[in-house]
Amino acid sequence: MPVEKITSPQNGGVKRVARLRGKKGRDAKNLTIVEGVREVRQALNAGCRIASAYVCCEGVYHCPPETIAELQARKIKVFDTACGVFDKMAYGDRKDGVLALVEPPELKLSDLKLSPQPLVVVLERVEKPGNLGAVLRTADAAGVEAVIVCDELCDIHNPNVIRASLGAIFAVPTVSCTSEEAIAFLKEKGIKTAAAVVQAEADLYDADLRGGCAIVMGSEDKGLSDLWRTRADIKLRIPMKGKVDSLNVSVSAAVVIYEAVRQRS
Amino acid sequence: MPVEKITSPQNGGVKRVARLRGKKGRDAKNLTIVEGVREVRQALNAGCRIASAYVCCEGVYHCPPETIAELQARKIKVFDTACGVFDKMAYGDRKDGVLALVEPPELKLSDLKLSPQPLVVVLERVEKPGNLGAVLRTADAAGVEAVIVCDELCDIHNPNVIRASLGAIFAVPTVSCTSEEAIAFLKEKGIKTAAAVVQAEADLYDADLRGGCAIVMGSEDKGLSDLWRTRADIKLRIPMKGKVDSLNVSVSAAVVIYEAVRQRS
Repeated sequence: MPVEKITSPQNGGVKRVARLRGKKGRDAKNLTIVEGVREVRQALNAGCRIASAYVCCEGVYHCPPETIAELQARKIKVFDTACGVFDKMAYGDRKDGVLALVEPPELKLSDLKLSPQPLVVVLERVEKPGNLGAVLRTADAAGVEAVIVCDELCDIHNPNVIRASLGAIFAVPTVSCTSEEAIAFLKEKGIKTAAAVVQAEADLYDADLRGGCAIVMGSEDKGLSDLWRTRADIKLRIPMKGKVDSLNVSVSAAVVIYEAVRQRS
Repeated sequence: MPVEKITSPQNGGVKRVARLRGKKGRDAKNLTIVEGVREVRQALNAGCRIASAYVCCEGVYHCPPETIAELQARKIKVFDTACGVFDKMAYGDRKDGVLALVEPPELKLSDLKLSPQPLVVVLERVEKPGNLGAVLRTADAAGVEAVIVCDELCDIHNPNVIRASLGAIFAVPTVSCTSEEAIAFLKEKGIKTAAAVVQAEADLYDADLRGGCAIVMGSEDKGLSDLWRTRADIKLRIPMKGKVDSLNVSVSAAVVIYEAVRQRS
């Protein structure tokens, strides 16, 4: 296989990847780390520029030859790294032998191409990469047209977000902006906002989520800010009948998103 | 405060907690570890026997005095552990200064007290404690009457399950058994089974989830076994419109459970 072999953890490529773990390093290079066969495939399908790829062709991980062939066909420089070296570059518990350095799509609100009556998801101040990734995965599955991340506390191109989304971040147009910008954009487009609020009077199932609609979810700890609570066209409450009285933000988002899917189908 | 002070990581209590991290240690002592103020409160509310509790009254964590008072009022031995010692006992990233050793509720199918037309959740071969915990949390929120874990790959009393459930495992009756036992039990009680299957022909929203109904979900990787696929009364499919084509099991469960809540409300 005509790929360069990396056997030393002192190799410059290994250090380059390590520097992209932090937001500062990612911003400086305008690159992020995409791990996993499925995730890299989504980045390829989305037409993202891939600077280089590191694969582990032998050993406990095994990058599929088709993936390597596809990377090379697209003129992407592929390095075959020995297992110990790949271990140093990869992260988390789902290593499957491929890692790429990808230029993340930097979309602005004005780049969004929406249908006349789109279903959109807005997330305010979500903190955990795992939650943001999970919502992106649900948004993709449900056919949501865009995810707008407001006042981000968690960099949308954090490798953990990409990983938790299984690459859905490349499939669903995702924009980071302020809440004010999002509110102005949605108003201008005539998209109503439906905010999930624990104290809302209306039941989820009584809310009309048809037409142009943005489902708005708040942070894990604090829920939605006053800004969104005041401005939302619809405030809805997920029925809660339990003793623990709390749902994970990615679960709450899924319940509301799929109720919208039902109403719109 | 009349609580014994533990300042050495060599203290027997610290080692006792460490031994309960593994299933073997838990089974030998019939105790598990419950971490977190909310979680310990759910165990207290459920009337579980609590062998002892370790709190961290000062420093970065701070166990609320009410919790300590309540533990003591119930004649539970409370140890105040210095921060470094508490660090050794606690686990994960959400430490809030309290940890209890609890006798987990060991329910059998025959112990379940169900209403005439209950909503029940069945999970087959779920592997990850975080997913099982998240489903328990959703089940509690949705008023599910029981969760039946079939052919468990992940011990239902694993401290990570308890933690991910935020203590919901104490609020929702949870039973571990084989798939055969669950199928026989549900049949005997006249509870129909609705299985989430990717290849099902019927859309989730066309399935009738009213009356006595068990929502059946499969494992993260493999979905449901042939046994459940063949035996299920209803097979339903969550609409999937995305490119990634995959939903997390806790998200899928939430979408189906809340559709049942809608139909039954």
